[in-house]
Amino acid sequence: MSAKIVTAAVLVIGDEILSGRTKDRNIGYIAEYLAGIGVDLREARVVPDLEEEIVAALNALRARYDYVFTTGGIGPTHDDITADAVAKAFGLAIDEDPRALALMRQRYKSDDLNPARRRMARMPAGAELIDNPVSPPPGFRIGNVFVMAGVPAVMQAMLDTAAKTLDTGTKMTVATIDAGQIPEGRYAAPLGAIAAARGETIIGSYPSYADGSFRNQIVVRGRDPAEVAATRAAVETMLAEIRAAAKPA
Amino acid sequence: MSAKIVTAAVLVIGDEILSGRTKDRNIGYIAEYLAGIGVDLREARVVPDLEEEIVAALNALRARYDYVFTTGGIGPTHDDITADAVAKAFGLAIDEDPRALALMRQRYKSDDLNPARRRMARMPAGAELIDNPVSPPPGFRIGNVFVMAGVPAVMQAMLDTAAKTLDTGTKMTVATIDAGQIPEGRYAAPLGAIAAARGETIIGSYPSYADGSFRNQIVVRGRDPAEVAATRAAVETMLAEIRAAAKPA
Repeated sequence: MSAKIVTAAVLVIGDEILSGRTKDRNIGYIAEYLAGIGVDLREARVVPDLEEEIVAALNALRARYDYVFTTGGIGPTHDDITADAVAKAFGLAIDEDPRALALMRQRYKSDDLNPARRRMARMPAGAELIDNPVSPPPGFRIGNVFVMAGVPAVMQAMLDTAAKTLDTGTKMTVATIDAGQIPEGRYAAPLGAIAAARGETIIGSYPSYADGSFRNQIVVRGRDPAEVAATRAAVETMLAEIRAAAKPA
Repeated sequence: MSAKIVTAAVLVIGDEILSGRTKDRNIGYIAEYLAGIGVDLREARVVPDLEEEIVAALNALRARYDYVFTTGGIGPTHDDITADAVAKAFGLAIDEDPRALALMRQRYKSDDLNPARRRMARMPAGAELIDNPVSPPPGFRIGNVFVMAGVPAVMQAMLDTAAKTLDTGTKMTVATIDAGQIPEGRYAAPLGAIAAARGETIIGSYPSYADGSFRNQIVVRGRDPAEVAATRAAVETMLAEIRAAAKPA
């Protein structure tokens, strides 16, 4: 099977995440969303509200992946420096975008469109707007970088808009197999043998812990549904053999 | 005031986070924990279960920050490759650590200590164990890198152990001021003026969105409690002036 692969990274911009004040919910949301449309999230980074940090991370990520999604730092306050940092990373001028300003004129009463809010219309030269149905200011796209809000409800609305413009690849088919309370250490060797034999698929083993005991799931991923189904069957047979061996004769 | 600064990064290792299957809870937990003991989290990264990705990220982060905390990839299955990747990043040999093996011999019945589980005793030469009160295998520290489990309950227990060995800095004092429904765009200009005048402190403005409206908080952080208190007072006065101006005469 010939598969098309499209890759992405997420760059979370915000002191509030690194200080522990705010728990990030955007990485997980974007990861799941991109998987659902056939884009592979390959890396995520969280950096502080410092221009040189944002520029360095953005330039590393945009050179390496098909798309980069940033979240945070596009509001009206002094600590919102993402648009300037993105312009700097691309070596582009930044100015008020007439389309963004026109949109904001429609959405704010004229008295409310003060200089701080007008700052949110500033974008690197050549940017495309990402509409924001939740609040007045839009996000923007420049090159392969999508600049979105940090507030999850706003980010999610912008991502819906941005996603329509993405090139997408072959979706991963995912099979999740419950290993229950069979310890990972019991099935690690045969699972490793299956993983080595079935290189078309990626197999992960994921424990969770609650109420004093572990429960494990085995996840099979791959771009060819037939391969995933075959690996899943091999894993299920292996687990059934372990369960049978554990029963008293 | 003379302040001591100790920095850290988190490296989350796991396909399950990037695929969206598992929502990371470790970055936020570690961020809050480190802030509480006087260690500044400066960066976080999430990378897949690929040796070259782990090695590259770890070498970038350990050269730059005082400490690096990794989570994930230290279990018994084939997809757990963190210990080998860490050894490779440091250019160190990796082998069964006699102390780790002795600990696991105490904790597993002898029949249960199979080769897959013994893999979890493999550590880079010179590593120190990080005890794990939740499950048998320990984590480890090598140089300035702490290698911990991905399961939150296990990671948290290891972090408690690891934290005892950390050099710590001057804690940040944090003041959170509720701006309620005053829009960010209303206070952005005076807040920016306060931020520019009071450079000893860091001011962030954080909106949240629920039930169709935004609520904002302003957070002041700094290592000198007196400076934070003074900035807090300036912010509160500024917000009171905005509230007073909004009332009909």
